[in-house]
Amino acid sequence: MKTDIEIAQESKMKTIQEVAETIELTENDLDVYGKYKAKINFSAMERSKSREDGKLILVTSINPTPAGEGKSTVTIGLGDALNALNKQTMIALREPSLGPVMGIKGGATGGGLAQVVPMEDINLHFTGDMHAITTANNALSALIDNHIQQGNQLDLDPRRILWKRVLDLNDRSLRQVIVGLGGPIQGTPREDGFDITVASEIMAILCLATSIEDLKLRLSQIMVGFTYDRKPVCVGDLKIEGALALLLKEALQPNLVQTLFHTPTFVHGGPFANIAHGCNSILATKTALKLADYVVTEAGFGADLGGEKFLDIKVPALDKAPDTVVIVATIRALKMHGGVSKDLLQEEDTVALEKGFSNLQKHIESMQRYQVPVVVAINEFVTDTESEKNLLVQLCENLGVKVARTNVWGLGADGGKELAQLVLKAIEENTNTFAPLYAEQTPLLEKVEAVVKQIYGGESVVLSTKAEKQLAQLKQYGWDLLPVCMAKTQYSLADDASLIGRPRNFSIHIREFIPKLGAGFIVALTSDVMTMPGLPKKPAALNMDVTNDGKAIGLF
Amino acid sequence: MKTDIEIAQESKMKTIQEVAETIELTENDLDVYGKYKAKINFSAMERSKSREDGKLILVTSINPTPAGEGKSTVTIGLGDALNALNKQTMIALREPSLGPVMGIKGGATGGGLAQVVPMEDINLHFTGDMHAITTANNALSALIDNHIQQGNQLDLDPRRILWKRVLDLNDRSLRQVIVGLGGPIQGTPREDGFDITVASEIMAILCLATSIEDLKLRLSQIMVGFTYDRKPVCVGDLKIEGALALLLKEALQPNLVQTLFHTPTFVHGGPFANIAHGCNSILATKTALKLADYVVTEAGFGADLGGEKFLDIKVPALDKAPDTVVIVATIRALKMHGGVSKDLLQEEDTVALEKGFSNLQKHIESMQRYQVPVVVAINEFVTDTESEKNLLVQLCENLGVKVARTNVWGLGADGGKELAQLVLKAIEENTNTFAPLYAEQTPLLEKVEAVVKQIYGGESVVLSTKAEKQLAQLKQYGWDLLPVCMAKTQYSLADDASLIGRPRNFSIHIREFIPKLGAGFIVALTSDVMTMPGLPKKPAALNMDVTNDGKAIGLF
Repeated sequence: MKTDIEIAQESKMKTIQEVAETIELTENDLDVYGKYKAKINFSAMERSKSREDGKLILVTSINPTPAGEGKSTVTIGLGDALNALNKQTMIALREPSLGPVMGIKGGATGGGLAQVVPMEDINLHFTGDMHAITTANNALSALIDNHIQQGNQLDLDPRRILWKRVLDLNDRSLRQVIVGLGGPIQGTPREDGFDITVASEIMAILCLATSIEDLKLRLSQIMVGFTYDRKPVCVGDLKIEGALALLLKEALQPNLVQTLFHTPTFVHGGPFANIAHGCNSILATKTALKLADYVVTEAGFGADLGGEKFLDIKVPALDKAPDTVVIVATIRALKMHGGVSKDLLQEEDTVALEKGFSNLQKHIESMQRYQVPVVVAINEFVTDTESEKNLLVQLCENLGVKVARTNVWGLGADGGKELAQLVLKAIEENTNTFAPLYAEQTPLLEKVEAVVKQIYGGESVVLSTKAEKQLAQLKQYGWDLLPVCMAKTQYSLADDASLIGRPRNFSIHIREFIPKLGAGFIVALTSDVMTMPGLPKKPAALNMDVTNDGKAIGLF
Repeated sequence: MKTDIEIAQESKMKTIQEVAETIELTENDLDVYGKYKAKINFSAMERSKSREDGKLILVTSINPTPAGEGKSTVTIGLGDALNALNKQTMIALREPSLGPVMGIKGGATGGGLAQVVPMEDINLHFTGDMHAITTANNALSALIDNHIQQGNQLDLDPRRILWKRVLDLNDRSLRQVIVGLGGPIQGTPREDGFDITVASEIMAILCLATSIEDLKLRLSQIMVGFTYDRKPVCVGDLKIEGALALLLKEALQPNLVQTLFHTPTFVHGGPFANIAHGCNSILATKTALKLADYVVTEAGFGADLGGEKFLDIKVPALDKAPDTVVIVATIRALKMHGGVSKDLLQEEDTVALEKGFSNLQKHIESMQRYQVPVVVAINEFVTDTESEKNLLVQLCENLGVKVARTNVWGLGADGGKELAQLVLKAIEENTNTFAPLYAEQTPLLEKVEAVVKQIYGGESVVLSTKAEKQLAQLKQYGWDLLPVCMAKTQYSLADDASLIGRPRNFSIHIREFIPKLGAGFIVALTSDVMTMPGLPKKPAALNMDVTNDGKAIGLF
């Protein structure tokens, strides 16, 4: 059987100019990066604004398990299938982070016959967006430390710097560091730490900004720390939002690529959904909506994380709710939610499947809460048995929810046509009564409670002493009316990764609130969320290589 | 008067395909990055190998002063002038580092009418080479720390890790750090530090590698540290040279841009010349030699640093010596070498000029030592008086050296024609008797002594106790026959920045030897060489901005 990278490398791509033509973009609208990648320039985005929005389809999933759910694969396959049904469609995805690529995943661009290409470029440096964010983030750190070193006119308290450095790598040794050692000419010693780039507030800002002007405004609002008398200090006080925006100007432009079936695809912006808001950029999604009749997009991890944040954080900024939400599940993953261990997944187990279905059911209910049509996509695996498939279809139908079997991994567009037709039907029937989870003016704690109770199915919210104090402080500064961005494990509806399936009667523990004033939300950090992953015992990097003529090996 | 960035932004560029046509490259030979930048692909480089080499002109200079010498500007103007004289010419330059761009310099792509464009792209992220090097360097660090964390099979001593992390920023607070804090699951605490990316051994390797195969071999030879029983551990022992090479495959391809006069120019690779070998990549220079009849290239800082390293480190790897060496000097800078302070430079001072000429004279003698023709280029400034100019010409002619007045900053190609004609004459007369400074098999200390005595004009070499011990260790491992890469202040021929002009009777103090086995040289670190610069009180970043349609401001 061919690996993903073999399929991708053997595929015959169209030139990016040919792909762009299908969405009525000319060569002048593009800044090309090699033959198969391009950025959309600002004048093309500006010009498209007068058009009407297409229909928006959000793809989300159950809580991920080690069995794999294939959400990106289904997103890509659904886009291909819609195009195959002569519906003019674009896909909008997030960019992979190099950290997981070098660490565990190898690649993150779909799989089998449902891939975006050129996969090796997208998985490696792509068009440099991650590097631009890393650079802007760390330039800000250097300028903060330099400000302190050169007289500290703003009276910044080195013990209360909130802004951390970042690298787009999995590197646990950088989680907690001491910088500025070596005596007075090397700076002021202080505690610091590195997050992974996708956790940078600048990544969230890039994904939420609607223009260079908005980007600069948001950058200026980033709070970097406090003065000795506890007054907030922002980037605007340092007067460097211009330089940071300059470093980000290309990164703000959406990247155009294609699927194996030549569906035009934006791959742009990539915050993780467990520690950030988990959606690709507003500019990519908005531009896609202007250029295509249908846009298929995904949000990170499960419906409790990426899904919720798409609907509560991205939708207001996008000014457009999804016309349908697709929830991806696999029989293997549901069996794991039903208690089966990974090495026994190939055996039929309808009991475990029915038990694990509770996880999917909760996500269906959560998404229906927003009053948008929901369609379940069963992403089939070769080991699934007919009884299992029939049972899962039946369980969904019992709930009155539309359900489609898909095999886009094995069949490409053809394997997604049933799903595409159901999605089109749902959109046709749609009465468009999107109901937000909370009103903008709801106080922060009530917003957290709404997410915990209505989306996670939890009972209560428990604040640490630190979080209690911070909440009072947030109120004092008037920041407690911002949306909340929950930072929670992706593996469970609760904040304990071991609580698979559909846990009930649990509390969510808020360890800390972190104001992200540039992004425009408050992060609520629950227990045990890593903002800098580590590498496994055998990192994926060990299998990587490159041939003498520059072909990638080992990005599976 | 227009700023450099205004001139650059108003210039009418040719498309990069049009530029490539002038050196007989087709669209298939290029990976384009936007309309005005491209990388040359490996098949085009392979194809060009059968051609004969063109003539090589190395541009170097006196020791830099705060007055500015304009070496890049003269290099670019000379290339433009040669083309204007119908000599098919390419230019090969180094890539700017973002650290100095954000810190002091603003931009580093020539000036006035002698610039490479698009200057704002080249000065910012360009084609991502620096970011790829940063990523590969730090991936190696993460994999080293992960190896220790996951059982430390190689028995690496965390106190004896030589490999440092890097960022392409000026950030003094990262010079000395402690990583791995926070308890057993966050890694092993150890001392570490960040260098600027251009100081990474991977930058040197990228600039010296002749193919992907050679790149992998060199990467595998990087020594990262020692075991507890003092055995060297290399990248090859960690088995990750493939992954690192994969991260570097595009970065290894030369970047093609153009001057304001459309001279095809490679801008590729950029190690500093004070802490590294200071030359652009072998692949760029070699490919340029195959594609053009004349290639103008520069080496970093003065002839004592970049010049010497070009001739002693790059020439053997390039297998081609320069056909002429141009030494750039300004009257302002020579007056500073003669003791004039920066604020008095606009006043005529022939006495100081004659005194400061001693610096130029030493560099002329040093370059003549290699038995290559030498031409002096006087890079004129508006404040230079006729008596000063006449005196400087006279002083050069007294030594029997060719000398040309240039004003490529103000006049472009026309301002470099006198120099171009002298260079052509020197090449014509050239008897090609390149004489290396030392034989390959000379022991390390003798190599250092040859550089110190014959190039710097010093009396002796003094080793620290540490360096003495290291020298013995290097001999033990058989590494003392590698070339030496001196790390020394650029401001003086000696290792004390305050010794301007032509110091005599000085010693060079070697603090430490650092084996760079991948690059294939031994760094000899003299006192006070910073491998991570700091930011000034008012960083250039404070003046930077971007317009709402994406135009850069403040890269002067």
